[in-house]
Amino acid sequence: MIDAVRGETNALGPEELLVEEPLEIRLDGLTVATTMRTPGNDFELAAGFCLAEGYLADNPISGIRYCGTGPAAETEFNVVSVETAGRVVPEHVRLGTISSACGVCGSMVIEELAERIQPLASVVPFKPDVLAQAASKMGELQELYSVTGSAHAAAALDVNGRAIVVREDIGRHNAVDKVVGRLLLERQLPATELALFASGRASFDILIKAWAAGFSAVVAVSAPSSLAVETAQRAGIGLIGFARGDRYNVYN
Amino acid sequence: MIDAVRGETNALGPEELLVEEPLEIRLDGLTVATTMRTPGNDFELAAGFCLAEGYLADNPISGIRYCGTGPAAETEFNVVSVETAGRVVPEHVRLGTISSACGVCGSMVIEELAERIQPLASVVPFKPDVLAQAASKMGELQELYSVTGSAHAAAALDVNGRAIVVREDIGRHNAVDKVVGRLLLERQLPATELALFASGRASFDILIKAWAAGFSAVVAVSAPSSLAVETAQRAGIGLIGFARGDRYNVYN
Repeated sequence: MIDAVRGETNALGPEELLVEEPLEIRLDGLTVATTMRTPGNDFELAAGFCLAEGYLADNPISGIRYCGTGPAAETEFNVVSVETAGRVVPEHVRLGTISSACGVCGSMVIEELAERIQPLASVVPFKPDVLAQAASKMGELQELYSVTGSAHAAAALDVNGRAIVVREDIGRHNAVDKVVGRLLLERQLPATELALFASGRASFDILIKAWAAGFSAVVAVSAPSSLAVETAQRAGIGLIGFARGDRYNVYN
Repeated sequence: MIDAVRGETNALGPEELLVEEPLEIRLDGLTVATTMRTPGNDFELAAGFCLAEGYLADNPISGIRYCGTGPAAETEFNVVSVETAGRVVPEHVRLGTISSACGVCGSMVIEELAERIQPLASVVPFKPDVLAQAASKMGELQELYSVTGSAHAAAALDVNGRAIVVREDIGRHNAVDKVVGRLLLERQLPATELALFASGRASFDILIKAWAAGFSAVVAVSAPSSLAVETAQRAGIGLIGFARGDRYNVYN
């Protein structure tokens, strides 16, 4: 119960809160991340995270499971183990290891990524107006948002702007990871024929994930950052920002 | 130059992009984080981060400096070293080390925090309507947002709702760290007499930082998460969400 104040009227009433709980992601037994996420589609989240961070390399996923052996029921669904045929040892944590003697800069990060991420084999030219129109209608598909007034969304859009996967989460990056994971588990990667929709900003981390998954374009409701534009240019990814129907910006 | 489309009119025009660059934060020589941030107030960001993560314990900061020794000018301002009188060795990374055999859950995280963070000595009761009114006027103070149409903001508000520190960044958490760092460097912590404003959601990480800095209340423009509400209740911090002038929700 919360105290909801609406002008002159004070009304005590229930309000749906967006759930936030930690998820520990393990890859071949090694903890690679603990992320604060909205529970649901956890296997997709774990798989998508591992791929988007470049941890999988060419190793196919052989299994995904909840920890499931703990004594406390409330915690057993907060650990997901991803297993590959081989034994993946992440040698690089994305930003942690690329620091040189006196630090990193955006361009260095992008070049390091370019070495690790397979370059896009081909890019499908998306029509910006189709993507901007699609983006403006995504609100109808955001179920969590409609209930909580919060929650970010990500989606995979086809060339006609049709959403083929929509995922929501308290974290922008998690929503993207869930979409990427879904496509991975359905063997639809690289996502050359698809564009990635993000309900918030297109910051650097979103572009990284789009690049790793092979999306041809990214469309965001809000602004891209300077580094996101630079990354899109380097990767050859189309980038649309402030997508509000017939108003939008084309950055790349 | 970007291609800005406004209905029937296509106009090529410059648009200010929000800058995003990595900042490596070192504490007594050890890299404790690399965060993607908007450059500016980097010393505050580094100091605030170290405090809000509980790394400083009771060690006062003896110096903060840019790396400054690197060959490349473009990278030397992307590393900030925080030094303390003693030699702080962070024994715990916030979420990384509290995982038990089969994972964590939100309540466990909160209890672990309660052990590490000094409990609030006292709490000043803020008036929710004053905070909600103040929150609705914060837009006027968000200079980066007005130029870029992006950027999150955080602020420290006094009991009359007056903003005494306002900081902006591409990252919500960075904006909060900058505010906390400013207060720390001005020896105004714990911030018992102050409330923390956040331009976006009040998620768990924002509440952690507010707790560590000793704020009596948190007011956010958007929703809190379930875990944020739980944390506010445990810490005794007042929590106002969806603060839009005379409309707001009181969660704690």
